[in-house]
Amino acid sequence: MRQKFHRLTIETRGKGLYMFTSGIEGFVAESGISAGLLTLWCLHTSASLTVQENADPTVRKDVAAFFDELVPEDRTYIHDDEGPDDMPAHLRSMLTNTQLSIPVHGGRPTLGMWQGVYLFEHRRQPHRRTVILHLIGE
Amino acid sequence: MRQKFHRLTIETRGKGLYMFTSGIEGFVAESGISAGLLTLWCLHTSASLTVQENADPTVRKDVAAFFDELVPEDRTYIHDDEGPDDMPAHLRSMLTNTQLSIPVHGGRPTLGMWQGVYLFEHRRQPHRRTVILHLIGE
Amino acid sequence: MRQKFHRLTIETRGKGLYMFTSGIEGFVAESGISAGLLTLWCLHTSASLTVQENADPTVRKDVAAFFDELVPEDRTYIHDDEGPDDMPAHLRSMLTNTQLSIPVHGGRPTLGMWQGVYLFEHRRQPHRRTVILHLIGE
Repeated sequence: MRQKFHRLTIETRGKGLYMFTSGIEGFVAESGISAGLLTLWCLHTSASLTVQENADPTVRKDVAAFFDELVPEDRTYIHDDEGPDDMPAHLRSMLTNTQLSIPVHGGRPTLGMWQGVYLFEHRRQPHRRTVILHLIGE
Repeated sequence: MRQKFHRLTIETRGKGLYMFTSGIEGFVAESGISAGLLTLWCLHTSASLTVQENADPTVRKDVAAFFDELVPEDRTYIHDDEGPDDMPAHLRSMLTNTQLSIPVHGGRPTLGMWQGVYLFEHRRQPHRRTVILHLIGE
Repeated sequence: MRQKFHRLTIETRGKGLYMFTSGIEGFVAESGISAGLLTLWCLHTSASLTVQENADPTVRKDVAAFFDELVPEDRTYIHDDEGPDDMPAHLRSMLTNTQLSIPVHGGRPTLGMWQGVYLFEHRRQPHRRTVILHLIGE
C-alpha cells in the first residue's frame, strides 16, 4: 500500500464553477497507483468543491443564479469587513463541499459519464486556490 | 491492507429517499475486512446520497416537502431540455452528497443507532442508479 | 500501513458551532501516524460537521442566523413529536456534513490557515455528541 500527495493550484477569475477533472485524472495516472481512494481537500472557506454535470454550460449559469438567490449578497451580515461577498462565500462553502473522496479503479477515478469535478469560487475577485490531493492504494 | 470494490444497483420509482443501509452492511460483512474505511460514490448528478433518521417515515415526507420548496421545479431555468425536474435535480444533488465515507470497526460501518444511509432520487421517472462501494482496511 | 480509531465526545450547550480542531490534531499527534487520511464521522442526525473560518466569532452568528432562516423552526412539519427544533435539525444536518475526511501530512491534518473544524449542534437542549475518528496511514 502506497500514498501520494500533491498541491493543485487553480487560478480563478471571479465567481463561478471551474472544472479540474483532468487535473485529478493526470495526478492519478502519474501516481502509479491503480486501485485506491483519492481525496480532494480545499484549503479555503470562501471557495469549495462540487460535482456537477460536465456537458451543458447553461447548467453552470443556473447554478450561479440559484446560489446568488439562496445566499444573497445584499442581505445584512454582522461579518462584513471583508466585503459583501465574503460572508455569502462562507455560507455557500458550507452548503457544498470542502472535501470529496473518489474511489480509484483501473487507474482512474470512478466518475460517472456526466460527472465533472469543480472548484466553486465564491469571491468576486480572482484568487489562487489550492486543493490538496491525497491518494492511498496500490 | 486489502481493498474491495462493488457496484451496487438501486432501482428507484421516482422522487424520494431509498434506504440501502443493509446493502452496505452486507458488502462489508462479506468482504472479510473488519477494520477500515468504506466509501460510497454515487455515479450520478441527478441523484445523491444522504444520512437521515431510519425510524419515522414522516421524516422522509418532510425532507421531500422541504427540498421541493427550497429548489422549486416551477422556477425558470436556462437548462430545461431534459424536463422541469432536471435542473432542480442537479441543485439538490449539490446541496446533499455525492460521496460518503464511513469508518468500519468490528466488521460493521460505525453508524449511529438512528442513522440510515439513503439514495436521494431527484427525478420523477424511475431510474436504475449505481453506487460504487470501496473498502480499504484489514 | 496502520489504523487508529477514537470516539471523541463533545458536550454542547444548545444550538451553535463548537470548534474541535485541537481535539483532532491531538488524536493525530498521539497516533504516531504522520501521513494518511483522517475521517470524522458524526453519529447523529440532529448535529453535523462543518468547516468554517476559525477567527472572527461574528461569522458563527451569521451562520446561525442564516440557517435559522433557511430552515425555519416555525414551519409546519409532519414529524413534530420530538419538538419544533427536531425536524429542522435533521434538515440542517443534511445540508451540511455527517462526515469529513482530511489528508494528514507531516503529522498534521492539512487544514488551511483559516479553517476550523466544527460540530454544528442543531438542538436547543444540551447534548453529549460523539464523533468517530479514524486514521489510516503510516
